[in-house]
Amino acid sequence: MNPITPATGADQRQVSRVVIIGAGLIGASIGCALSAAGYAVHLRDHKISHARVAAGLGAGIVDPPVSADVDLVVVAVPPGAIPDLVVHSLQVYPNATVTDVGSVKAGVLDTLWQRDVDLSRYVGSHPMAGSHHSGPMTAHQNLFADRTWVVTPHRRSAAESVERVRAAVRACRAREMIMDVDDHDAAVARVSHLPHLMSVLIASRLTGTADRDLMLAGQGLRDVTRIAGSDPALWEQIVGANSEAVLEQLRSVQDQLGLLIKAVEATPTTKDLRSQLEQGVAGARKIAGKHGAAAVRYSEVVIAIPDEPGALARLFSEVSAAGVNVEDISIEHDPVREVGYLALSVAPQHADALVETMLSHGWAVS
Amino acid sequence: MNPITPATGADQRQVSRVVIIGAGLIGASIGCALSAAGYAVHLRDHKISHARVAAGLGAGIVDPPVSADVDLVVVAVPPGAIPDLVVHSLQVYPNATVTDVGSVKAGVLDTLWQRDVDLSRYVGSHPMAGSHHSGPMTAHQNLFADRTWVVTPHRRSAAESVERVRAAVRACRAREMIMDVDDHDAAVARVSHLPHLMSVLIASRLTGTADRDLMLAGQGLRDVTRIAGSDPALWEQIVGANSEAVLEQLRSVQDQLGLLIKAVEATPTTKDLRSQLEQGVAGARKIAGKHGAAAVRYSEVVIAIPDEPGALARLFSEVSAAGVNVEDISIEHDPVREVGYLALSVAPQHADALVETMLSHGWAVS
Repeated sequence: MNPITPATGADQRQVSRVVIIGAGLIGASIGCALSAAGYAVHLRDHKISHARVAAGLGAGIVDPPVSADVDLVVVAVPPGAIPDLVVHSLQVYPNATVTDVGSVKAGVLDTLWQRDVDLSRYVGSHPMAGSHHSGPMTAHQNLFADRTWVVTPHRRSAAESVERVRAAVRACRAREMIMDVDDHDAAVARVSHLPHLMSVLIASRLTGTADRDLMLAGQGLRDVTRIAGSDPALWEQIVGANSEAVLEQLRSVQDQLGLLIKAVEATPTTKDLRSQLEQGVAGARKIAGKHGAAAVRYSEVVIAIPDEPGALARLFSEVSAAGVNVEDISIEHDPVREVGYLALSVAPQHADALVETMLSHGWAVS
Repeated sequence: MNPITPATGADQRQVSRVVIIGAGLIGASIGCALSAAGYAVHLRDHKISHARVAAGLGAGIVDPPVSADVDLVVVAVPPGAIPDLVVHSLQVYPNATVTDVGSVKAGVLDTLWQRDVDLSRYVGSHPMAGSHHSGPMTAHQNLFADRTWVVTPHRRSAAESVERVRAAVRACRAREMIMDVDDHDAAVARVSHLPHLMSVLIASRLTGTADRDLMLAGQGLRDVTRIAGSDPALWEQIVGANSEAVLEQLRSVQDQLGLLIKAVEATPTTKDLRSQLEQGVAGARKIAGKHGAAAVRYSEVVIAIPDEPGALARLFSEVSAAGVNVEDISIEHDPVREVGYLALSVAPQHADALVETMLSHGWAVS
């Protein structure tokens, strides 16, 4: 099918009838978002009660559509069940574009190449959203708002199929991103599947740890092991479907772990440990919400540190009462005069107001 | 000094005069807590402005005490500076018990054994609290409330020294835990230092990752890499001070990583990957706040899933308006009758009220 062919019959009416297969959190949330955007959504789930709960939350209706009227099918089931349901959907809905929302894309496509189906109507996709809850109960139409949603066309995808999937992604108010299938799978191996397996590795060690020792654990251990608590049946399918890319990542981590061990062995005679720790900081900053965002310029308001009890508590409460959002606070030290200053970082447009408020309360502002 | 000797002169008056060396977050917060508990706290910091900020927040005063009057010294400085400052404190404050709050305990003690100091007056400790902020600005007296605070007596510790440290720990409203020095260091290697280094390992890989690929990262990667963003200078000292125990952990993870790689290679022909993922879940549950707590029994209120649009949204809003805290929601499915039920888990004492409210709103409760 030629991507620049003018729209065919099916495309001359508005793309609007959708079947969602799998009324879990993702499927039901897509249903809510597309229903809110004006699509007619039909929900299917092998557990009718899940479809009914999703329908009760506004994700669509449980009545089946006329097959030929369906424009788009979204397969939102666990990874292991995706290929067969995509094949089934291409066969049952003759005019529909079919997409899936699985987190690994190459395997689905490989299956389709081996089956006698109309590949031009399949376009994979992968929304970056989810939750530790599964099932439709916590579904909502904003689940994808401002989240990345990857669309992975392949060389046989029809242009109108790609456009239908992209339109649905935009209707869910997600940020669409077009990626090659293999690039996508390598990227998720790196930023999602490997971190998951590392979390599993750390968490699984805790099963043999004395409760007494666990009393010494802090928030850090909780953070690092949280994702290891996710559904093992789901992750077995995800890792299995992306095993080549995952193995490449695991082997590379294995090499890096060897270097880390050498660095700790050599401490303090070399600076290797320090440089590895610093690289960790750089990586964490790259991903951390605030630091990952484009650098924001703040204005600094500098206040002399007063030498009286209770003064700072009063200062903080007055800054807070001024309604100015303080982005950062640091102590500036003058080693020669042995005095100090508090530097408050605020948005440039708030700096003048803060200075005025502080001066009016009698603080020494420089 | 004999642990069962009756109290000496210094102990007959109430233990009350404390010097805190290092007015960072931990030191300043200890100062706030002890001041609130009635101790007289003197703050020392090589940056006088830090001590002054801490004093301004109510952590104590910056004026020095008469050395002989000091009952307790708390050394709250970075790990690398601890041993020398403990030695210094034992020499300068002749009647004081000296403790430190470092996260590794054996190294300090090793140093003291090699120096000509009164070991009986030193008792190490380690409060499990902290923050990503450093410096005194975010100090507060509740930082240690209900947190574990390990006290590590050694075979030369005097009983009255141990008691002074324990009294201070209780005054900070922490949960005291007595541990052997080596047991403590092995435990923190396992539950803190290893997870930190693994987080560094994952995070450091992100420095070479394309921004485009990072768009595919979710909250999981953020959680796993967050602690890698901590001060590398501090962590270099911590890992360096506990390198033997840390290396044991790292080598053990290396073995486990090898097994994980084998398991992924063998998927799906073996169940090894699945069982490793399941062990990760078990470990994550052991540490996760809610799951780690003693199992709580909830009552289930089961409501038939209504077959009309908007009904569930109304149900959830009515449950919420009833003021009952729903601990868990699940869908119970009856595969024969093809109907479903929502099971709401609530505290036993709220179950009756919830049932009554739901019935009064016309829901079918079973």
